[in-house]
Amino acid sequence: MVRSFIEVEPDSHFPIQNLPYGVFRPRQGGLPRIGVAIGNYVLDLAALDRADCFDKTAVSGKAVFARPSLNAFMAMGRPVWSELRATIGRLLDAEEPTLRDNEKLRTAALHLQSEVEMLLPAEIGDYTDFYASKAHATHVGIMFRGKENALMPNWLHLPVGYHGRASSVVISGTEVRRPHGQMKPPDSAVPVFGPSRQLDFELEMGWLIGTGNEQGLPIPIEEAEDHIFGLVLVNDWSTRDIQAWEYQPLGPFLGKNFATSISPWVVPLEALAPFRVPAPKQEPDPLPYLRQKKSGSFDIQLEVYLQSEALERQERIAATNYSYLYWTIAQQIAHHTVGGCNLQPGDLLASGTISGLVKESRGCMLELTWRGTEPLRMSNGEERIWLADGDRLTMTGWCQGDGYKVGFGEVTGRVLPALGLT
Amino acid sequence: MVRSFIEVEPDSHFPIQNLPYGVFRPRQGGLPRIGVAIGNYVLDLAALDRADCFDKTAVSGKAVFARPSLNAFMAMGRPVWSELRATIGRLLDAEEPTLRDNEKLRTAALHLQSEVEMLLPAEIGDYTDFYASKAHATHVGIMFRGKENALMPNWLHLPVGYHGRASSVVISGTEVRRPHGQMKPPDSAVPVFGPSRQLDFELEMGWLIGTGNEQGLPIPIEEAEDHIFGLVLVNDWSTRDIQAWEYQPLGPFLGKNFATSISPWVVPLEALAPFRVPAPKQEPDPLPYLRQKKSGSFDIQLEVYLQSEALERQERIAATNYSYLYWTIAQQIAHHTVGGCNLQPGDLLASGTISGLVKESRGCMLELTWRGTEPLRMSNGEERIWLADGDRLTMTGWCQGDGYKVGFGEVTGRVLPALGLT
Repeated sequence: MVRSFIEVEPDSHFPIQNLPYGVFRPRQGGLPRIGVAIGNYVLDLAALDRADCFDKTAVSGKAVFARPSLNAFMAMGRPVWSELRATIGRLLDAEEPTLRDNEKLRTAALHLQSEVEMLLPAEIGDYTDFYASKAHATHVGIMFRGKENALMPNWLHLPVGYHGRASSVVISGTEVRRPHGQMKPPDSAVPVFGPSRQLDFELEMGWLIGTGNEQGLPIPIEEAEDHIFGLVLVNDWSTRDIQAWEYQPLGPFLGKNFATSISPWVVPLEALAPFRVPAPKQEPDPLPYLRQKKSGSFDIQLEVYLQSEALERQERIAATNYSYLYWTIAQQIAHHTVGGCNLQPGDLLASGTISGLVKESRGCMLELTWRGTEPLRMSNGEERIWLADGDRLTMTGWCQGDGYKVGFGEVTGRVLPALGLT
Repeated sequence: MVRSFIEVEPDSHFPIQNLPYGVFRPRQGGLPRIGVAIGNYVLDLAALDRADCFDKTAVSGKAVFARPSLNAFMAMGRPVWSELRATIGRLLDAEEPTLRDNEKLRTAALHLQSEVEMLLPAEIGDYTDFYASKAHATHVGIMFRGKENALMPNWLHLPVGYHGRASSVVISGTEVRRPHGQMKPPDSAVPVFGPSRQLDFELEMGWLIGTGNEQGLPIPIEEAEDHIFGLVLVNDWSTRDIQAWEYQPLGPFLGKNFATSISPWVVPLEALAPFRVPAPKQEPDPLPYLRQKKSGSFDIQLEVYLQSEALERQERIAATNYSYLYWTIAQQIAHHTVGGCNLQPGDLLASGTISGLVKESRGCMLELTWRGTEPLRMSNGEERIWLADGDRLTMTGWCQGDGYKVGFGEVTGRVLPALGLT
């Protein structure tokens, strides 16, 4: 197994097999720039670039890493990403002296993760959210429409999705304020206005588009994965009361657009290759433009933790797996573009809530508490139907290799009480 | 009445009372930059800025006009927009010699509109589409759900809206390719894939956000208009067959995201002040956060023209008025942000299809032909239920002053046949 000269704990999410990209700023000062996570460190690609470490690559002279977003690098395409990944892997290899034996360069290029602030990895032009988990769509359907009509007639034929709000996507760690909104309680004849009483999380994974497509020209399914730069964890915060009242007939709006949190490290698709698995069998067969030949899913373990203000440490409330998703990333991209819609570097696409069939594998409070009828009980006796002010919600995910993990770090956020609006 | 030293025909959309902003590039070469329309000319603000015409204003030394988008200028806020508008009005005034008597400056700063290419006026971060016409929502409701349930229960309580696709917003003149997609014809047991057979336009107006709000901090309704830079015409191209099959439960997606066309000249809110009118009476009274004290609508006449390949000139197929809209711009902005969603400079918000009660005032083919049951008949005997390949669709709009118009120019686009997908 390849090893780095940098010490990496076996439980670390960031061994040399991962090498995820992110945008960071040293806490002691300096401009935002691009780095790669390795163990407890961030490797500063802008510093390596200045030291001519990428001299013979396609990024040479383009200063793509001394920037506050990955967009310029993303736009360069898969052959360049692969070349850089190989180059960075070599520089970090235990057998390679260039960085290992150059103390000055090591000092300039390695920052402790605890000493940097992570920023949004990309300028996100558009954010699209899918609804790709059959268990999630079925559970929600049963709760709101009954068992007979749980899945909408279109659900097995196309990856249902909608446009989300790009401006309110925030980086992990950002506190999320409980939103006000309009809702109609069942016992009220008219709608009321106030802070949402049904604040929820949604456990999702997202992928950032590297290279886009020209408007009017669809991306064929077998080319779809070439457009993906990498994956992140997504918490698509939701307010169920606001959503329930507003969503007919045009879909979720204020119920979702107050905040969406993402994890800072973008795990390249190449790092996930050893963990590729087939998606669940699709029945009926999708239309030809959605038929994917190769295995389109990944074995990514996902967990959700809640820590209330009264709890000393966070407690796990859900554990599920990315591979439960019915529709693959490639299918979602092929569908998104089949009418000519153009994707652009930095666009965020997300899976929708990821749920499995057993209770603990459900990816949101709505399902975990079955619309409030089965409260979650924490170790100190506290109960939760929805999220309370002060709660910290954290999601994590990783692929388990033989003696190493390819991980996503975490996406975390704490709930702030609603503003005192007059 | 104030007049410019530049000759302006009484029917022109661009007298000195208008002064809309746009981004243009001279056809003979040069970088994109910002201009103002006056009669048949474009006044080059970058050239005026270089000639120190804005020396005593807030934009001095900031080079905000030598840019390919209005975003930097938009972000400066209403006091700066007002100051610039007054300064430009003075420079163009018939009594003011600075530009009038300086032939060298006139030559540098005035381009014939026929000799420039217009570009998108802003980098649009997010695009939101509302559903603000009661007649439109009622007509659609009757067609799809019957007369009893025409309006959804939420419609009279909040301005229903959803997130559209920002990347596929294009400038007037861009040709629009008929999209492929999945749909389920009534006589088919399973969905089919192919070019849409129900391509439609939607007559809308849009407003571009000037200054945004911080995430988590709503914009109160009485401040909402201060955030609006100006208005444009919008054609939100739609495919009714794709939309009907996909939209449950998360709203329109591929049925809309292949293209949205906007007019190039952004008419400042200040230019519309003389044409302010009250919005229709709202019954029931909206919740306090949606109550607007001042008249929130505008008397803007709107027309739609269709020209098929066989027709020698375009023919009018609809005429309506902006003032028919039930929800005002300020109400839509207050609602959009009440949960904390952040708007940003350059964001596009649109009204949704604008329809009135009489047949000719309906703003899309779906309503004009009553879902295909009442075809439109053109003067040469051609009939239309939906748009055909080769059709050119043009929308125009203006406010009628006493001896002058404050106009929006037009938004136009021709339908290209679907790609031959394999």
